[in-house]
Amino acid sequence: MAKIAVMGYGTVGSGVVEILRENGDLVAERCGQKIEVKKVLDLRDFPGDPAQELIVHDIAEIVGDDEISVVCETMGGVDIATKFVTQCLEAGKSVVTSNKAMVAANGSALLKLAQKNNVRFLFEASVGGGIPIIRNLRTCLTADHIQKIFGILNGTTNYMLTKMYDEGADYDAVLKEAQKKGFAEADPSADVEGWDACRKIAILSSIVSGRFVDFQKIHTEGITKITPVDMAYAKAMGRMIRLVGESVVEDDQVHAMVAPMMFDKEHALAGVNMEFNAIFLTSDMLGDTMFYGQGAGKLPTASAVASDVIEAVSSPEAVKRSVWTDEEMPVAEFGSENRRFFARVSGDESLADTLGAQLGSLQVLRAPGIAGEFGIVTGELAEETMAACVKACPEIISVIRMAD
Amino acid sequence: MAKIAVMGYGTVGSGVVEILRENGDLVAERCGQKIEVKKVLDLRDFPGDPAQELIVHDIAEIVGDDEISVVCETMGGVDIATKFVTQCLEAGKSVVTSNKAMVAANGSALLKLAQKNNVRFLFEASVGGGIPIIRNLRTCLTADHIQKIFGILNGTTNYMLTKMYDEGADYDAVLKEAQKKGFAEADPSADVEGWDACRKIAILSSIVSGRFVDFQKIHTEGITKITPVDMAYAKAMGRMIRLVGESVVEDDQVHAMVAPMMFDKEHALAGVNMEFNAIFLTSDMLGDTMFYGQGAGKLPTASAVASDVIEAVSSPEAVKRSVWTDEEMPVAEFGSENRRFFARVSGDESLADTLGAQLGSLQVLRAPGIAGEFGIVTGELAEETMAACVKACPEIISVIRMAD
Repeated sequence: MAKIAVMGYGTVGSGVVEILRENGDLVAERCGQKIEVKKVLDLRDFPGDPAQELIVHDIAEIVGDDEISVVCETMGGVDIATKFVTQCLEAGKSVVTSNKAMVAANGSALLKLAQKNNVRFLFEASVGGGIPIIRNLRTCLTADHIQKIFGILNGTTNYMLTKMYDEGADYDAVLKEAQKKGFAEADPSADVEGWDACRKIAILSSIVSGRFVDFQKIHTEGITKITPVDMAYAKAMGRMIRLVGESVVEDDQVHAMVAPMMFDKEHALAGVNMEFNAIFLTSDMLGDTMFYGQGAGKLPTASAVASDVIEAVSSPEAVKRSVWTDEEMPVAEFGSENRRFFARVSGDESLADTLGAQLGSLQVLRAPGIAGEFGIVTGELAEETMAACVKACPEIISVIRMAD
Repeated sequence: MAKIAVMGYGTVGSGVVEILRENGDLVAERCGQKIEVKKVLDLRDFPGDPAQELIVHDIAEIVGDDEISVVCETMGGVDIATKFVTQCLEAGKSVVTSNKAMVAANGSALLKLAQKNNVRFLFEASVGGGIPIIRNLRTCLTADHIQKIFGILNGTTNYMLTKMYDEGADYDAVLKEAQKKGFAEADPSADVEGWDACRKIAILSSIVSGRFVDFQKIHTEGITKITPVDMAYAKAMGRMIRLVGESVVEDDQVHAMVAPMMFDKEHALAGVNMEFNAIFLTSDMLGDTMFYGQGAGKLPTASAVASDVIEAVSSPEAVKRSVWTDEEMPVAEFGSENRRFFARVSGDESLADTLGAQLGSLQVLRAPGIAGEFGIVTGELAEETMAACVKACPEIISVIRMAD
């Protein structure tokens, strides 16, 4: 019998307790022993909830309990979570977390501490919700050099972009609806500004490179500037708009970015709708591989936490090689990446020739019902060339990157 | 330093040697030790090939070599491969294989033998080529009951169906082209009759249920009867035809089938083109998850073999619980499954009303350029009801299942 504790009895934490109870027999069979949730840390009480009798309000009750071998951190936030996780690791307990903000900020130190104390620090649920992308990177694609990660990493914004595309609704209306349905938080900035996706692409890049990639150095754009007019152009081109995280991992640096992109409807990522996530990997031997699933939600995320609990119970000792070290992997300065761009330009088409000459634009576009402006798709350009052109040409209303 | 042997220096075997050489440093880092291919068993010689000096012609040279701890079986075939693998396991060597025919036929006995000798028997490359589906079932989705497996498991037929759809070409022409390009074998029956996909769905069903599922009991249809007329109807409906394996795993039996199906173009599997494979899993906590990648090909398959070699070198002792036991999991008698069907019916539409009443058909279809017949889509029916109707009604030319 293994005894564990859960810190934070919110959506994910209560889901973990539920899965370990509901699928207890299956879990016991896979672990070779039963897993019992012995204590649940939360500031609140939950009268009437089956977990009420497990509730403790003081972290010391978990840290000081020698029977507890694994602790799930599902509180969220950075500072207090990091403090509590540190105490658990120092007390010789393995820690499993769904907290991407903590992992992106302090993962290097926590991984190091876990190695030092010969325990596990696992965080499958921090990226891609129920998609087992981290375990795949750690244990499946082991004979391959992963060259590129490219994916839809945030369910909230994908839900919003799908709705905007399908219903022609504007950003504010869709955001309100997403908040009402619980897909977006009251303060949605972490999702809509791209920071959540940025932390996730930083975590994946750290795993692939084996070195710490600082999310704060990754160029990040959200979806707050996407309008129904952009959707109209996307439809006219047979494309969809998706918020993606991209990371090209080289030997000595990564090129990484989070931004909305225009996808051809035939592209596998264009078919990823609503709150689903998908992650494309390109590697030297396997070629392209894609993992698709629910990127958020109580049970999918809790299932990922539970699979980490099973791993920590089954293999409690630190692995030989840390997932990543605290040596920093430089993020390349943003600007040299080459790609095509879609741009909206105000006025009639008199500017089309000038811009065409400057940007190697191949197409001039009109979207039905949109007057007083036109769209262009450029040839392949460096990011910095496009940025300079936008600065110099006030007629350019907005720019969205093309995904191929 | 771990020393391994490769049995069979064909496409996959030479790929394994190539990956372990090319990515040797990466593999050494992940294993904590270098991996050296010490011997390669093949009947042929390969003068000028870097592996020539490793070639041996007698299995005894591998079985009797105590330095060799892991053997890759990439010969193909069932009887001799099983004999050699048995000898290796009995000699205390872990075995890694890409041979789905051997695993589907004799996996239970070989898994048992590996347990008995406290070594590993791994076969990631036997299903889905480079897609790490088996490792995901074994180690990632561990807190979930997998309820359904649904996937495109054969690259050759998917290549052919894509070509037939895109180019309107007929079956024979596409098969010849596939053979010329090396996607189909001289005797293509294992692929086009569905047997290859059948073995793979049996292997996946065995892993999910933990008990041996006999591929010979699975209802299997191939693509040999698919014509350009079917493709014309599919296009008229906004659908694609894909050969899929399906398995619904219940507590005491599995409902399994391999057959071509009509997919809505929006379905994630409809976007899986050419030689790619994709596998959809439905489970109780995670919901839907999909894994997509190259289903065949030298390096993707060899990469899967190499990841198994890394696992066998890193964790050489048998796991507590065998992937599946030799207790047989019954395959439900085929016939009770409910679904909708597309059928082609000869004649004018005079039969439509009668069939409609009998089959609850909702739609009568016409495909452009196709005369003397019409198509119907039935309501939801049991397989046996549809089969009885086909038997009783000679006007029904052919039937393809609908995928939702």
